Amino acid sequence: MTDVKHGKVYGIGLGPGDPELMTLKAARLIREASVIAYPTLAGGASFARSIAADFISPDTREIVMDVPMTIERGPAQAAYDVGAAEIAQTLEAGQDVVVLCEGDPFFYGSFMYLFARLNAAFEVEVVPGVTSVTACAAVAGLPLVARNEVMTVLPAPLDDGALHDKLVASDTLVLMKLGRHFARVRALIDAAGLTENSVYIERATGVDEVVKPLKDAPEKAPYFSMILIVKGADPWL
Amino acid sequence: MTDVKHGKVYGIGLGPGDPELMTLKAARLIREASVIAYPTLAGGASFARSIAADFISPDTREIVMDVPMTIERGPAQAAYDVGAAEIAQTLEAGQDVVVLCEGDPFFYGSFMYLFARLNAAFEVEVVPGVTSVTACAAVAGLPLVARNEVMTVLPAPLDDGALHDKLVASDTLVLMKLGRHFARVRALIDAAGLTENSVYIERATGVDEVVKPLKDAPEKAPYFSMILIVKGADPWL
Repeated sequence: MTDVKHGKVYGIGLGPGDPELMTLKAARLIREASVIAYPTLAGGASFARSIAADFISPDTREIVMDVPMTIERGPAQAAYDVGAAEIAQTLEAGQDVVVLCEGDPFFYGSFMYLFARLNAAFEVEVVPGVTSVTACAAVAGLPLVARNEVMTVLPAPLDDGALHDKLVASDTLVLMKLGRHFARVRALIDAAGLTENSVYIERATGVDEVVKPLKDAPEKAPYFSMILIVKGADPWL
Repeated sequence: MTDVKHGKVYGIGLGPGDPELMTLKAARLIREASVIAYPTLAGGASFARSIAADFISPDTREIVMDVPMTIERGPAQAAYDVGAAEIAQTLEAGQDVVVLCEGDPFFYGSFMYLFARLNAAFEVEVVPGVTSVTACAAVAGLPLVARNEVMTVLPAPLDDGALHDKLVASDTLVLMKLGRHFARVRALIDAAGLTENSVYIERATGVDEVVKPLKDAPEKAPYFSMILIVKGADPWL
């Protein structure tokens, strides 16, 4: 019986959507990978895979974790259990596995589910990526924070009270995960008198990117959309 | 008299320090640049230039803005006035200028000073970069936020009251710009009962990187250091 050195897991941030916003390290690791892994949602295409596509070799094995779209957590967690088990087997056979993640793996990323399952038994390296936060600021031409300004990132599903308190307490606000909460969040921003300071961005750096003042935003927002609120009038002068 | 098409300004995020964490786009634009620009602090070496060094051609012209280290804002702003004027001249002559920025240009970056001076008259494109926030999380092996968790970025120079209120109000805290405020911020974190949840990181992804639980951190912190506080016990399962 031979002792095989275990492989290593790489959690790779791919950035917000434009493949050229991948890091040099992400591109190299994907190009060199013999095994990659990524989730798909309810049988759909993988956004992460589409960002990395040009760097994936035809010889690379792909572990696909199909995550069902349900409100209960159980079925999704079961999909990550199955995926983590297949990744663990590959690592035990001595191969590295490169996990593809939109944005940054540790910033609202589903990579955390794999990290929680694999980190105790295997070596894990996270390669940070450009987040949608600074990508949205870049495409909106909107400096986020300067000097001693405070920035808060708020998921839109929070309740009205929590959102209101946090909207008034920071200089810069980043509202994520708008989706079906968009109309409610817009009303809260309006009630706080912040609509004039708000920019709406959809699919930043993607081919179908949308950037508009919040007052001119469409009625419906997809999951990959964001509102940036910058209160500082000209704080960087 | 010929009408020359004006050049374009690129504000390029170079990421946290490891040159391999530059984006493909940043690397390409620097390699192709005929003119680059960057600030130095009081005659010191430029951290931004050192990240990009391998991609800068010997034929590239370099506009260096030497920013004096003073408490008053005037002298630093005068240095950006001079730099912006030299960049503007270059743009008017039809050449593009690539401005090098550590991290991300719009996230506490000095690029904002140039953006404010050039944005009205010239085309500006910002290329987002990996911030020190997700780089620190990656090297600490610490998922930042999941699901509906709230993250707040706090500059350490804020006063005690503001820091305390914000320390208790978010799930994840990122304390930046520690420097001479380190001892005071540490005491505030301790008083809030959060030391056990805190990790100290110095020069993330650099060759002299330091990662320690806050309780074991050195007494003095340089400017490029950070404290991450993640309260969620195991929120990503």
